[in-house]
Amino acid sequence: MNIGIDVMGGDFAPLEAIKGIHEYLTSNHFPNSKQVTITAIGNQSAIESLLKEYQLTHIPIVHAEDVIGYNEHPTKALKEKPKSSISIGFHLLATQKIDAFISAGNTGAMLVGALFSIKAIEGVIRPTIATILPKLNGNTGLLLDVGLNADCKPEHLEQFAVLGSLYAQHILHISNPKVGLLNVGEEEGKGNILAQSTFPLLKSNTQIHFNGNVEGRDLFNDKADVIVCDGFTGNVVLKLAESFYDIAHQRNFHNDSYIQRFHYENYGGTPVLGVAKPVIIGHGISNAKAFANMIDVAEKMIETELCKKIEQSFQNQKAVSTE
Amino acid sequence: MNIGIDVMGGDFAPLEAIKGIHEYLTSNHFPNSKQVTITAIGNQSAIESLLKEYQLTHIPIVHAEDVIGYNEHPTKALKEKPKSSISIGFHLLATQKIDAFISAGNTGAMLVGALFSIKAIEGVIRPTIATILPKLNGNTGLLLDVGLNADCKPEHLEQFAVLGSLYAQHILHISNPKVGLLNVGEEEGKGNILAQSTFPLLKSNTQIHFNGNVEGRDLFNDKADVIVCDGFTGNVVLKLAESFYDIAHQRNFHNDSYIQRFHYENYGGTPVLGVAKPVIIGHGISNAKAFANMIDVAEKMIETELCKKIEQSFQNQKAVSTE
Repeated sequence: MNIGIDVMGGDFAPLEAIKGIHEYLTSNHFPNSKQVTITAIGNQSAIESLLKEYQLTHIPIVHAEDVIGYNEHPTKALKEKPKSSISIGFHLLATQKIDAFISAGNTGAMLVGALFSIKAIEGVIRPTIATILPKLNGNTGLLLDVGLNADCKPEHLEQFAVLGSLYAQHILHISNPKVGLLNVGEEEGKGNILAQSTFPLLKSNTQIHFNGNVEGRDLFNDKADVIVCDGFTGNVVLKLAESFYDIAHQRNFHNDSYIQRFHYENYGGTPVLGVAKPVIIGHGISNAKAFANMIDVAEKMIETELCKKIEQSFQNQKAVSTE
Repeated sequence: MNIGIDVMGGDFAPLEAIKGIHEYLTSNHFPNSKQVTITAIGNQSAIESLLKEYQLTHIPIVHAEDVIGYNEHPTKALKEKPKSSISIGFHLLATQKIDAFISAGNTGAMLVGALFSIKAIEGVIRPTIATILPKLNGNTGLLLDVGLNADCKPEHLEQFAVLGSLYAQHILHISNPKVGLLNVGEEEGKGNILAQSTFPLLKSNTQIHFNGNVEGRDLFNDKADVIVCDGFTGNVVLKLAESFYDIAHQRNFHNDSYIQRFHYENYGGTPVLGVAKPVIIGHGISNAKAFANMIDVAEKMIETELCKKIEQSFQNQKAVSTE
């Protein structure tokens, strides 16, 4: 398999991306790294000198003479900069030259690229982005949507539950993941119109294991492995949780082993779920460890054929609903 | 002034309420306590023996032979239990026998009582409940709505901004409080339909000092003193923030002076804003300190004539909009 990385994305580009490739290929944390080819996309001479410095060989380079900046308008930038590392990455992914694409660059451009160059899997109404929830019991949960879909309908949340369950099962190794609906109370009937209308859909969906409503206080406990909500609420929650890590840092208790798990570098980026190929978006501040983790997630998504499993799941669902 | 307390509300009733009255009346933290009469509403004999134990005199008692339980249906319970401490409290408040009413009992019954026995101030479309935000700089902010209005319209959020600003000004002593709209990005135009439509209303409202969008990471920083959002998002945020205190406790860094400020007992309960009289709802687990703080907030709301100021503000606004 071949994983493409935009090494020009992120605040410390291209250094941290290359260091991340190095960490991924040399660290014992990543047992499957031997089978993986990593393609570096970006400025050829900058990449070559860093590869030399980090004694990395067998890393194919695809030169990109342009970069999309952080503040550029996503659609406009993708159109006007076909030679940017993100545009080239999506082109390589769309034409089967690479099997997954990772970037810590302009998030909007990554989302637009994923939706329009790669496209949604048939049956998926709205692709979504998820974040990892570090559970107090040591396990890992998933929250989605965290910002791609600010306004949602019940059927979107239902699909997020299916997408999240498949991700939890195959990538996080949670068998029969419990799905929770983020809400303001435990009982059925609670919530805003969206949550009230979503509850019966989740309850009757046989593809998932729905465990009822969860509240803001339940995000890190054991009530649900996959928590679904609209992207507005999810984005507020994500950024609030990130700010708690920053507060912990500021107040000097960030070395707590649980709080450490809130550090973005351990997440391995945000997968775009529901598009036809693995696309992973990194934090702008991504460091080497974050890049190594993103490569690891991409490897798992390819290895488990997650996108194919999602496709099959939505085909089956379609077959069931048209029976 | 006369503040009524339902001493039967809360997990440790009536003991902690009486201890709270004692703390309020004897502690130096509450300089205005000398001018305040506190009326205890609940089981007469239980109250009498506790008042004796805590050597409290001059506490009028209003006997209530019934109690509304935590799991009772609010509207039904209020109708069927006119002799419950909550029903009697609202009756006393509605008939000017007391000037504010506090309870840590059934939250739903407190909200229904506030909305239907006391009623909204003219011009207020939706009364709201707020929570305190402990700021990293030592100040205190306000987040609203935190659960009374799960589905909101832009004009509701605009009114929350006015109500919150008046509370911040008169009770929290923040002059010219900055208002922030909770959103998924900083720039105007970001957000779900609600946030997008609320932004221009806040921007053009001359009664408030709108400072633009704030994100989930900005709740505890200096960007805004009053943060408005729909009650669904606000409730999720509130419970998530509360859970961080619990996590801090579990992980043993809750003694940090900043984290301490997240402890519910320091909040002084949740005021219902936009109803004609001061109503304060306590946490079920309220202890003596929480009750003392709730009495203090009630005292300030009466002393500053906050409800009258809200009424005037909404009258002025009406005059402006019909000019």
